Amino acid sequence: MHSFKELSDIFEKQFSERHFPLQPASLYDAAQYILQIGGKRVRPVCVLMANELFDDLGPDAFHVANAIELFHNFSLVHDDIMDAAPLRRGLPTVHKAFGDSTALLAGDVMLVQSYDFINRIQPTHVQEILSIFNQTAREVCEGQQLDMDFEKRTEVSLDEYVHMIELKTSVLLAACLKMGAILGGSSKHNQDHLYAFGKNLGIAFQVQDDYLDAFGDPAIFGKQPGGDILANKKTFLMIHARETAGATLRESLDEIMSGHSPDKVGKVLDIFRKCGSDQWATSLKETYYAKAMQHLEEVAVVASRKKELEMLARFLLQRDR
Amino acid sequence: MHSFKELSDIFEKQFSERHFPLQPASLYDAAQYILQIGGKRVRPVCVLMANELFDDLGPDAFHVANAIELFHNFSLVHDDIMDAAPLRRGLPTVHKAFGDSTALLAGDVMLVQSYDFINRIQPTHVQEILSIFNQTAREVCEGQQLDMDFEKRTEVSLDEYVHMIELKTSVLLAACLKMGAILGGSSKHNQDHLYAFGKNLGIAFQVQDDYLDAFGDPAIFGKQPGGDILANKKTFLMIHARETAGATLRESLDEIMSGHSPDKVGKVLDIFRKCGSDQWATSLKETYYAKAMQHLEEVAVVASRKKELEMLARFLLQRDR
Repeated sequence: MHSFKELSDIFEKQFSERHFPLQPASLYDAAQYILQIGGKRVRPVCVLMANELFDDLGPDAFHVANAIELFHNFSLVHDDIMDAAPLRRGLPTVHKAFGDSTALLAGDVMLVQSYDFINRIQPTHVQEILSIFNQTAREVCEGQQLDMDFEKRTEVSLDEYVHMIELKTSVLLAACLKMGAILGGSSKHNQDHLYAFGKNLGIAFQVQDDYLDAFGDPAIFGKQPGGDILANKKTFLMIHARETAGATLRESLDEIMSGHSPDKVGKVLDIFRKCGSDQWATSLKETYYAKAMQHLEEVAVVASRKKELEMLARFLLQRDR
Repeated sequence: MHSFKELSDIFEKQFSERHFPLQPASLYDAAQYILQIGGKRVRPVCVLMANELFDDLGPDAFHVANAIELFHNFSLVHDDIMDAAPLRRGLPTVHKAFGDSTALLAGDVMLVQSYDFINRIQPTHVQEILSIFNQTAREVCEGQQLDMDFEKRTEVSLDEYVHMIELKTSVLLAACLKMGAILGGSSKHNQDHLYAFGKNLGIAFQVQDDYLDAFGDPAIFGKQPGGDILANKKTFLMIHARETAGATLRESLDEIMSGHSPDKVGKVLDIFRKCGSDQWATSLKETYYAKAMQHLEEVAVVASRKKELEMLARFLLQRDR
């Protein structure tokens, strides 16, 4: 069994090779650019961890891990175009650095290349993996569309928001674990519980992400809080506050959100606190974390083999601090 | 053996079923919109024709035909975003009707869905077909990138232009024929000659397309000639004229092209005629057509079975009028 750090290093070493032809450089340099910016590589490592839960790490797990990381980067490049985002991991986004059209095409070619990795796995598994990969890819697109749709709406229910988050971010983490488990020869029971573990972990992570964006310590979080508020984004906190505030307070909130007060963030955070949205979010995160851990508990391998996944969950949800 | 018309009708009947879930409608209605606009469905019918050259039409050929038509429409939607094109087949493009972001995502989800069709074919063929499909998809992206790169350059050689056209349009037609042949159980020899037939046919078609845009009869062609000239596009004619004109004439051409004279099109067409680019293009089209037919000749099935493909080639290259 390897640690997250060890698997991340092993993954990075083979992933850092160039994945594309040299020509046309105008296309492939753009694709290579985003891949080299890095990231935590959580998703591909989850494929490897789930594989190692049941069997020695095999080449197929690396093919799927590479496919997943390419897919994830494809979705980042296209999302950044849609959001007109200037920065990604502190550097210019692909469309800022290479232009919108090339970024669009670079995304396309990364998605195609991800299928090329899927096609390298053993024939016995290729169709099952392809099926999960396709379904997940479709769901991620649906989640992004819902996210954009929600931006145009005032009322979004908690259920709708959770469903969007599941599609946009959680199913990919869940699918990584399930695919790794399949390649490791695990039972359907174990695959399903790992999928549910990943899905709940993903939602818990998003709750935390929304919370930190509002209440995170800038010294630890690395940026000023309130980015989501300034971008008028729906978040767990905003939805809770709007659902629980009385009519007067909700009107105040909507008024502040539609204006450009210099202390917009501070005023909104006050209302979040008045509604208890901060404590509610902390407790909601714990609820999803607990659900995730229950599903991991149900995975039928000796407890010692699950240690690394438990540590990853704690690390992602900052429970190791 | 079925005619093009018969296969086109059979294809359309099963393709006209909805290919996507109903929700989120904001995403899937956009995808469905472009599919319903129609088109000649040449590519999927080529899959079916090549399949029927060697065997009775099987379900796998329809899966691949559907995948190809979805892929083709994905590329149209993304190309139209990149070209900021307002119309497609006389109707608003997807990004005009649904917005850039939804068009981008609808393209993505169509590409994913095309892989879902690939995954429905028999296990014995899935990896070989997937491999050709991936390579072709990559090449189509490369072709689009080169096309955009060429717009920014003054000098593009004929070889470079032909290479771009091969990637952007010909390889897809070629791959359709090859994949149909593979599913029909044909030999490598036959697959390769059908691929070369499609590739040369595709180039001949593009030569004709460039020619008609300049010299087509508006009464037959349905639009005023000179669209490519007004859009400052590289074409077979422009490249030939710039390569063969003397220094003075080339300077005139470049001056006219960089200006906005009300008779820009007429002046450029005059220079094309002076350079003999019109006759050269007609002859070049015949050269590629002849190459295509030589490769079809080499396909080792009785001549009578090739009749429909020959008729399709004549129809596409307007040799039946």
